[in-house]
Amino acid sequence: MWPETRLTRRLGVRLPIFQAPMAGGATTPELVAAVCNAGGLGALGAGYMTPEAIEAACEQIRALTERPFQVNLFVPERGLQEGAGAEAASAALQPYREELGLPEPELPSEPAPDFADQVAAVLRAEPPVFSFTFGIPEEAVLAAFRKRDIVVMGTATTLAEAVTLEDTELVDVVVAQGMEAGGHRGTFAVPYEEGLVGLMPLLQELGARLRIPFVAAGGIMTGRGVAAALAAGADAALLGTAFLTTDEAGIPEAYKATLETGRDDGTTLTSAFSGKPARGLRNRFTAEMADGDTPVAPYPMQNALTGGLRRAAAARGQPEFLSLWAGQGVALCRRLPAAELVAALEAEAETVLGGG
Amino acid sequence: MWPETRLTRRLGVRLPIFQAPMAGGATTPELVAAVCNAGGLGALGAGYMTPEAIEAACEQIRALTERPFQVNLFVPERGLQEGAGAEAASAALQPYREELGLPEPELPSEPAPDFADQVAAVLRAEPPVFSFTFGIPEEAVLAAFRKRDIVVMGTATTLAEAVTLEDTELVDVVVAQGMEAGGHRGTFAVPYEEGLVGLMPLLQELGARLRIPFVAAGGIMTGRGVAAALAAGADAALLGTAFLTTDEAGIPEAYKATLETGRDDGTTLTSAFSGKPARGLRNRFTAEMADGDTPVAPYPMQNALTGGLRRAAAARGQPEFLSLWAGQGVALCRRLPAAELVAALEAEAETVLGGG
Repeated sequence: MWPETRLTRRLGVRLPIFQAPMAGGATTPELVAAVCNAGGLGALGAGYMTPEAIEAACEQIRALTERPFQVNLFVPERGLQEGAGAEAASAALQPYREELGLPEPELPSEPAPDFADQVAAVLRAEPPVFSFTFGIPEEAVLAAFRKRDIVVMGTATTLAEAVTLEDTELVDVVVAQGMEAGGHRGTFAVPYEEGLVGLMPLLQELGARLRIPFVAAGGIMTGRGVAAALAAGADAALLGTAFLTTDEAGIPEAYKATLETGRDDGTTLTSAFSGKPARGLRNRFTAEMADGDTPVAPYPMQNALTGGLRRAAAARGQPEFLSLWAGQGVALCRRLPAAELVAALEAEAETVLGGG
Repeated sequence: MWPETRLTRRLGVRLPIFQAPMAGGATTPELVAAVCNAGGLGALGAGYMTPEAIEAACEQIRALTERPFQVNLFVPERGLQEGAGAEAASAALQPYREELGLPEPELPSEPAPDFADQVAAVLRAEPPVFSFTFGIPEEAVLAAFRKRDIVVMGTATTLAEAVTLEDTELVDVVVAQGMEAGGHRGTFAVPYEEGLVGLMPLLQELGARLRIPFVAAGGIMTGRGVAAALAAGADAALLGTAFLTTDEAGIPEAYKATLETGRDDGTTLTSAFSGKPARGLRNRFTAEMADGDTPVAPYPMQNALTGGLRRAAAARGQPEFLSLWAGQGVALCRRLPAAELVAALEAEAETVLGGG
């Protein structure tokens, strides 16, 4: 069974090892291409990127690899009032700005790039795989990808969400995101707490019910984890945190260092950085914002409001104000080139799966 | 690799399929023996049982099977003031007692059987395997089991807890309990929230660090789940919820019926029934007690205080006041004899693992 699955065959990739599309700069063209060239599926986390940046990044990836790759976008929440609560949330961050000597920012009128413009850019760039999270794009958007023969992958955190994606008949693959996953929760159709399902039961439920292939995400850090995901019924394993400490990952050095050294305290779920629950290492900011009283604006406004703090912290090598997204398997991260990580995962999985 | 592992060889069981030791009556001698006779390892959940009942149950099991089986106890929390908060907690339950027409109970002076007496009973009964949760028994207790050549298994919910168990050098096997597991959390050495680790990363962490064998528990409901646990590094898979709907499980019919029909709302974690966090299906009692203001006594006092409500609800076939413990994979439960479940798990796992 190793390494070919329905999905790797369809995509034309050698290994069922996918790199997660982490937004915020981690997924440099160098990282994406290194994963692709090593036999996996690299992915550009384009959720925060402008249309121009998306097209430029895809061009750079294509200059570095001829293999298929994935581009991921964040589906905006419908009917969200973007300005709601922004002033109170901004005021709550003022003590931190003062501590770091930052000016008070004007409230951004557009806290995130326009989704329709991002979609148009991805359609022009025409990557072999498009994926999304936080919801489901409108039918016309999905149909446009289908028309171009771009494989469409949608993120689900429960069986019900996975079935909703399959029922569109325009989604080719479900990414099953376990509660272990680092970064933002993709939950979109159930209350947030109900979306905290462990990867192991989620995969078994999808295997019993879904007709389209699904990919396992959340807490997979080793070749044994990849093999377990395949045994549980997934067609591939998607790893995020494992790739954050590779040489090519575009995150601040203070973030990489903290993933290696500060990981024994475990992870927590916080909305304080972006307005949407996400999993990462604890630090001073997550602890102080967890009092339950501090106002937090909805996503993406909170993300825009904390941007200055995070950039200043990155520039100063100060992890206490960085969003240190990480999954529950973070203690197993290793620093090495991305290609070596893919090769190690392949070798480890083969000891379990028996080679192919 | 299927079906023999280090642990199945040591125990002399054919399959790496263990039935979880669920307390509260589910693990009848008939269930334990059926699992053992089908090739798995059955287990008596004796946490709430008197010494006399433990010895009698072991005798009954031995009358039904010649295979090895397991007995599990709850380690008491040291320094706990058992009466603390009991009066307020009891008063908070009064409206429910009135609704069910139950008399106000006297506060029990001993809300749980004495642990030392239970240990003495298990030592007399001499089951091939002894397991524990909620902490670590004193060294003299562990040494007494070692002296009788009884295999000792301890429950961990984090890597740190697993290492603590291994470091005693008197624990032979770690049961890795993922956050997906139904019933009580075994967390004992870290804050409760930090113990909510998904099974997938937990198994990979233990595989990288532990020398003694470990067993995977939490959300495993299918043969694919068993195969995934083995692929991730476990020596066996331990299933609780999957066995609750077997014919031999000694739970109220209203509980079995709700596991089959009421499972789509998912599970929740509640301390309202016992004073200790446990995962189960939502019902009126878990919802109304979740307001954060209702006083709940520490375990085991709260368990004693709610006993009358639970017994009355069971007698009346009323699931709204039952503790409907269930893991996150509950949607995959099936009603059948225990031996058929074990055979189905074996057949499903073999399609993945290739037979042996």
